[in-house]
Amino acid sequence: MADSLYATRMNTIPKSFIREILKVTEDPQIISFAGGLPNPRFFPTQEIAQAAAAVLTGADGAPLQYSTTEGYGPLREYIAQRYRDKRGVDLSPDEVLITNGSQQALDLICKVFVGKGDAIAIERPAYLGAIQSFSVYEPQLYPVPLLDDGVDLGQLKAVLDRHRLKFFHTVINFQNPSGISYSQDKRAQLAELLSSYDTLVLEDDPYAELRFEGTAAPSMRTWLDGRVILLGSFSKIVAPGLRLGWVCAKREIMSKLIVAKQASDLHSNSLCQRMLHHYLINNDVDRHIATISTAYGNQRKTMIDAIEAHCPAEVKFTRPQGGMFLWMTLPPHLAAIELFERAVGKRVAFVPGTPFFVDGGGDHNMRLNFSNADADRITEGIRRLGDIMKQMLARPQ
Amino acid sequence: MADSLYATRMNTIPKSFIREILKVTEDPQIISFAGGLPNPRFFPTQEIAQAAAAVLTGADGAPLQYSTTEGYGPLREYIAQRYRDKRGVDLSPDEVLITNGSQQALDLICKVFVGKGDAIAIERPAYLGAIQSFSVYEPQLYPVPLLDDGVDLGQLKAVLDRHRLKFFHTVINFQNPSGISYSQDKRAQLAELLSSYDTLVLEDDPYAELRFEGTAAPSMRTWLDGRVILLGSFSKIVAPGLRLGWVCAKREIMSKLIVAKQASDLHSNSLCQRMLHHYLINNDVDRHIATISTAYGNQRKTMIDAIEAHCPAEVKFTRPQGGMFLWMTLPPHLAAIELFERAVGKRVAFVPGTPFFVDGGGDHNMRLNFSNADADRITEGIRRLGDIMKQMLARPQ
Repeated sequence: MADSLYATRMNTIPKSFIREILKVTEDPQIISFAGGLPNPRFFPTQEIAQAAAAVLTGADGAPLQYSTTEGYGPLREYIAQRYRDKRGVDLSPDEVLITNGSQQALDLICKVFVGKGDAIAIERPAYLGAIQSFSVYEPQLYPVPLLDDGVDLGQLKAVLDRHRLKFFHTVINFQNPSGISYSQDKRAQLAELLSSYDTLVLEDDPYAELRFEGTAAPSMRTWLDGRVILLGSFSKIVAPGLRLGWVCAKREIMSKLIVAKQASDLHSNSLCQRMLHHYLINNDVDRHIATISTAYGNQRKTMIDAIEAHCPAEVKFTRPQGGMFLWMTLPPHLAAIELFERAVGKRVAFVPGTPFFVDGGGDHNMRLNFSNADADRITEGIRRLGDIMKQMLARPQ
Repeated sequence: MADSLYATRMNTIPKSFIREILKVTEDPQIISFAGGLPNPRFFPTQEIAQAAAAVLTGADGAPLQYSTTEGYGPLREYIAQRYRDKRGVDLSPDEVLITNGSQQALDLICKVFVGKGDAIAIERPAYLGAIQSFSVYEPQLYPVPLLDDGVDLGQLKAVLDRHRLKFFHTVINFQNPSGISYSQDKRAQLAELLSSYDTLVLEDDPYAELRFEGTAAPSMRTWLDGRVILLGSFSKIVAPGLRLGWVCAKREIMSKLIVAKQASDLHSNSLCQRMLHHYLINNDVDRHIATISTAYGNQRKTMIDAIEAHCPAEVKFTRPQGGMFLWMTLPPHLAAIELFERAVGKRVAFVPGTPFFVDGGGDHNMRLNFSNADADRITEGIRRLGDIMKQMLARPQ
């Protein structure tokens, strides 16, 4: 078979660097800050088992039959209701489509909006899953730098003025990889800027409810309404193995997302949608999420304490108020990729910064996940990293 | 928001005609031969409930955690083993990727192979889900007529000589919508023809095990080996609501399918993969499939008996040896779409032929599903259809 049989897009999709790293870290002896896994200790395994029994006992076949592309009605209602109750966003269930995690929502949005060469703005550094998903559609990606309080609006305006952007993709709370959140002012200014352009915002927000400090700022929907597409996920607040997330969009866009979803895989798992809904309405989900958030807050504190105790003072890092990641910036003469190689030798892993930058950069950055490992492993892993950093810094420059 | 924000491909995806029809037929009073639903009476609901309990009891978190893109290892092994045992196809588990039904396999294959304007050969009439899935990638579709024993090889050769085909898509057993199966001779001749061209075969085979008459012919892999991509599904033999199917390809192609799958939705539902595997190895699946096949054979007999008793003699139809559909050809002065409209008035539905033809045609054809309805409803539905046909034929021409 000739290579020319493949579509050209296969040359543009970056091979997942994290996937390659995860292979290195399959050894359970390795202390891994590399992945983006929730702590499985908090999975509601028994409650999900009860939900499975309840949904299947005496069932008429519906949980195992083909079902609607949009998703299970009561689950869509639950999501809309939760946006109203928790986020002050007024959504109709008709504006909610159930997807296989929010990763699939990115793919469906690209199917609907992105042709070859179309312009998309992303954050710099950007979420790797988004880079990978978008690249399939062969767009021009324009990374816009993140500041401490959100995207650099001057630079975003420059991109908007030069290119017809299909959308701006933002992980608006506890960004992956940087851990930063958009301030309320920044959101208002972003809305003000975007209101002059015919483009959309993808508000990708899987971590919103995992807040352990500070106060939530409103969704971009508050200002831009139907020009915002919301993406969310049950992966971080219930369990990722169910592969259930959602995308919310105004009806006109939704009708096209539904066609794209149908062409992609007809609909998401009927049984697990019903099980998840049963779990959500029969358990204290808020308390469950509070438990996870508190634990992740403690794990983040452990990590920061360990960094301050063991890493050189030249090392800078973000202090996320929620989510699963913090972002470290090494001194200029300390390369993250060399640190990574040495760290794997000492059985510690993280993600070096370069894959988060589609235009080069990130050589001195690294992403550290604090949600997956328990406290003593976090402390030990950071201690090892700190030792290697000190050795590298002690070399003649 | 300007319409120009949408990708051009959104203009080329046909809105699912079946989806529109299914809306008409949501009324449970309607006797529907329109959908492609398995008979829910045979869903192994209790066994799936037992599998859920077994997989989740004492689980370490793995069934609810992120997992590998390729799919659950033991399930991939089961699929490879079943191909060896039942079909004489020698496959390694490494050549199996778990997908969300075989619909997603079509999407992933297009991601890997199909660019805008690329040539694809499909059957005429073609499987609607494939037309819809392919259309997203804006290919040139070349429909090649089906004869009683499979595709018209002369016409396929003509397409192969004129176009660089990425692949030929075939539903090789009990085709949807026609019900026909490729004979062994036709398969050998198809392999002989294709061996001179650098192209692939998508052997889409969701119904293979639902045989109630005749003998199975070998897979195209027997002749063309790695140039055949196999698609299969648990939707028809276990339950569609689990959304679990598979695609098998040689390793070089598989590595690209995995990248496409990861970009699309990371991986399929971890929990249901484990539940399904537990169900498969702890139950007599062969007996279960034999029960379904026998029942569908009886339902098909009921439908054919009713057609012969109630429909005009001018009506022709296929006699599938398995699967879920038969294909009817009306006399030239009897339009399927008018019959459909009248039938809905009498609370019977089917799918008129036109959507199965991307180049026009099918005006006098219709697809009838026999797997979903029980015997008395089949007889009553066909009786009503026969009455309408007779009334239409009795009109002055």
